[in-house]
Amino acid sequence: MRTLAEELFKDFREHSVSEFFRKNAAMLGYTGKIRSLTTVVHEGVTNAIDAAEEANILPDITVAIKRVDEDPEHLKVVIEDNASGIPEEFIPHVFGKMLAGTKLHRSMQSRGQQGIGISGAVMFAQITSGRPTHVVTSTGNGEIVCADVMIDVDKNEGRMMNGKKLKGNWRGTKVELELKEVKYERSRYGPYNYLRMTAIANPHARITFIEPDGKLTVFERATDEVPERPKPMSPHPWGVTADDLLALAKRTKSRSVASFLISELSRMTKRKVEETRRLSGVNLNKKPSELSWEEAERIVSAFKQIKFMAPPTSGLRPIGAANIENGMRQILNPEFVYAVTRQPRVYRGGIPFIVEAGIAYGGGAGRKEGGEEVEAEGLDLIRFANRAPLVFDQGGCAITLAAKSIDWRRYGVDIATAPLTLFVNVVSAYVPYTSAGKQSIADEPEVFKEIREAIMDVARELRRYLYRKIRARERQQRAGIFEKYLPIIARKAANLAGTQEPDITPLLKKVAGLGDGGGKDGP
Amino acid sequence: MRTLAEELFKDFREHSVSEFFRKNAAMLGYTGKIRSLTTVVHEGVTNAIDAAEEANILPDITVAIKRVDEDPEHLKVVIEDNASGIPEEFIPHVFGKMLAGTKLHRSMQSRGQQGIGISGAVMFAQITSGRPTHVVTSTGNGEIVCADVMIDVDKNEGRMMNGKKLKGNWRGTKVELELKEVKYERSRYGPYNYLRMTAIANPHARITFIEPDGKLTVFERATDEVPERPKPMSPHPWGVTADDLLALAKRTKSRSVASFLISELSRMTKRKVEETRRLSGVNLNKKPSELSWEEAERIVSAFKQIKFMAPPTSGLRPIGAANIENGMRQILNPEFVYAVTRQPRVYRGGIPFIVEAGIAYGGGAGRKEGGEEVEAEGLDLIRFANRAPLVFDQGGCAITLAAKSIDWRRYGVDIATAPLTLFVNVVSAYVPYTSAGKQSIADEPEVFKEIREAIMDVARELRRYLYRKIRARERQQRAGIFEKYLPIIARKAANLAGTQEPDITPLLKKVAGLGDGGGKDGP
Repeated sequence: MRTLAEELFKDFREHSVSEFFRKNAAMLGYTGKIRSLTTVVHEGVTNAIDAAEEANILPDITVAIKRVDEDPEHLKVVIEDNASGIPEEFIPHVFGKMLAGTKLHRSMQSRGQQGIGISGAVMFAQITSGRPTHVVTSTGNGEIVCADVMIDVDKNEGRMMNGKKLKGNWRGTKVELELKEVKYERSRYGPYNYLRMTAIANPHARITFIEPDGKLTVFERATDEVPERPKPMSPHPWGVTADDLLALAKRTKSRSVASFLISELSRMTKRKVEETRRLSGVNLNKKPSELSWEEAERIVSAFKQIKFMAPPTSGLRPIGAANIENGMRQILNPEFVYAVTRQPRVYRGGIPFIVEAGIAYGGGAGRKEGGEEVEAEGLDLIRFANRAPLVFDQGGCAITLAAKSIDWRRYGVDIATAPLTLFVNVVSAYVPYTSAGKQSIADEPEVFKEIREAIMDVARELRRYLYRKIRARERQQRAGIFEKYLPIIARKAANLAGTQEPDITPLLKKVAGLGDGGGKDGP
Repeated sequence: MRTLAEELFKDFREHSVSEFFRKNAAMLGYTGKIRSLTTVVHEGVTNAIDAAEEANILPDITVAIKRVDEDPEHLKVVIEDNASGIPEEFIPHVFGKMLAGTKLHRSMQSRGQQGIGISGAVMFAQITSGRPTHVVTSTGNGEIVCADVMIDVDKNEGRMMNGKKLKGNWRGTKVELELKEVKYERSRYGPYNYLRMTAIANPHARITFIEPDGKLTVFERATDEVPERPKPMSPHPWGVTADDLLALAKRTKSRSVASFLISELSRMTKRKVEETRRLSGVNLNKKPSELSWEEAERIVSAFKQIKFMAPPTSGLRPIGAANIENGMRQILNPEFVYAVTRQPRVYRGGIPFIVEAGIAYGGGAGRKEGGEEVEAEGLDLIRFANRAPLVFDQGGCAITLAAKSIDWRRYGVDIATAPLTLFVNVVSAYVPYTSAGKQSIADEPEVFKEIREAIMDVARELRRYLYRKIRARERQQRAGIFEKYLPIIARKAANLAGTQEPDITPLLKKVAGLGDGGGKDGP
């Protein structure tokens, strides 16, 4: 006779990660017709810019969204880049296998990281339109590979179909995804605004966008400087856990724990290894694979007592204040812009990050509806992580919380009406995202504090500008008054005195000059 | 010569789903020391209650949290149930393999569903304390299995160690997880409140809780009625997509599409199949495996034009208004309680759900700090999905949004100060969670609207009660006045008339009786 448990466990099944995300597509950002479309664009563009960065070239990206038939919710998204291309044998894995990619085991800043994004987009296309994703790619070896890719959801594997090869000298990748249940709109949450934000944070990229109605927009690059490629960074001793240490020990080629610590962690020197040995009492001559949990814990707690240099931040690649200002100028054409790149900081003991903020006032800055030039409607907060725009889930994001925590009146602005765009970018090899959709940064205390400081830095500069502007306007008004009444006074005075009316033009010029507002500040 | 792409792709790697969630533990709710502890308790208790439900027995669950050593952030969580037990060969899969479980391919209401929860807790234990999870289980076959389980993160596989078997007549499962980096606190977000909420929503469960200081609390069951086991429900034609249909077609045993539609979907009859055939023009005699995407799309769009009965809701198991009231009475001991279980509704065209709401006023109701009886501090919103408490991520949750959208003053309460507990439970085979941590319900329009209606239902009843209470108090005050002045008036009148003072007791009793407030309402 079977027990109850045996009866119940006959239904025990295993799922693939693709099947999991198929059922839970909302976790990847596929929720709502507008957001789903923007998510697909985001995944394609993220991959394109990351690839260009790896290849050390200026990205030239074209995004086209086209109608397929009468159904306005049936669209094709085409994303083309000029990066390194994908070797043929990797095509099914890149587009059809989740949790696979080139960025998984590195401690390095990049937009993508988990190997889910583009496969998720391929899956969304497949489950809404039933169509494979069409890929055209070449590594520049004279051969262009064209193929269709679908995901075998049960196995989490990509299937390549209709593959063919052409001759040609081109390098790059073009991806065509056919989607249903999506909607194109020029709203704050649509692809247009997403690409506009991407252009601001990636002033070295040229992004060409073709909308379903055929309208073409080029977000021209604001600099020809290729950003330096981010470098992998070894973890800092203060940032590793016992479990991390053992995971590293499993993969290392070092023969002893001592040499392993030096090769796999940053800021470890022979002297620091000696200190670790002394404080932990662990025999560091043993093989890394023989390290026990308890020894790893003792090593980690010894680390906490040792003075190390701060974690290296040489691998982090902020956009840079000048580039942010250029990007905001290029896209927003504001009357005032100012940006700051703060010094590196760490969170959770040893994970380095950098916060950048920029502020733009007037011109195209401020909340716009529909992306067209309409009346300004108050503060537009644009959030980024490693230069990728965060468009959704703003509510719980540390950037939103930090911006809200500022008393803006102290900086002379009413954020409900001011034509203001506030830009924040958080740069790290480990951005603490709150979900797989990567649209919101967790409220880590150090990160929150640093974002707040950065915003206050740029807000102070804005206050100075606005103050000068008010002063200038007052002076101008004063000058206007002189201009109006001086000639009258001069005439009346001359009449009274019975003398000839004096030439007051030089005097007026002098007064008007003071009202220029461009120059030095008065006392 | 290697191309740039070949150079870059030499780092191409694959991750297991365990490795993914190890790096992104926050997505499973492991963020912060208090929340991490509550998440472990949640996963264990969820599994225990689900298992009891499957076994059709009254759950008897013991949760103990113990200190391990001097370190207050080093704790052991022990969760024991009296359910069906786990067959030996499934132990490593249940506790050590993510995306594996008995609930994956069913359309059935349950707390757990994805086969991630308890393995996630085992992994959290392992990466913080380095210790395996100790499991003791018996299916009631006279044999008790004890074993340690760890997860091989690289392979997403469970490893069983130190297994041994004892003789004994016991049935159930006991799990011991050793954790570091956690913190015990009796706050709103801690295990105490979590279990208190669980007890309210599961009045058929007895939950015994032992805190680290040894304090024992028994949340006694408020009913001995075992809830009927939820039944798997076939999807409704209006709720399936073309992709769903093809996925079902792949697994069916039916020989023709026509019989497949009847066997796999609800509300399909021979007549409806005929209508589908006519409207779609698809040959329904072919094998299900031969169905093309385009045909599946035509079938799905034919479904939309056919009148079907509403989706079956026989498989949904709400708690029931009387049980919610009992649960709230048992735990909160309020002066007023009222609950409602609404009629089933559907969202996204065909996914059935039920909303229940309960309200408690006075007594232990309202926001308390530390779980102790302190002064009431306004509305306490307690959210549930399939009877499991949602403790975190309240911000974006549809329940919170619906509760906030109510104009509470219209119901005569100031939610900032009233001793009020509002209970909402959303029941569905597919609760639209916003993340893998399952702490927040997505803002689906139909779900939001229904929650709002449910809250207004109970709020109206509260208004009626409060109104009666105010009336009663007014009457009492009136009666008080009579009591005070009638004797005086009687005496003076008697004196004036020179008669004997009358006995006014019967009159006073009559007036006081009106002031009882318990009886009928006045006009």
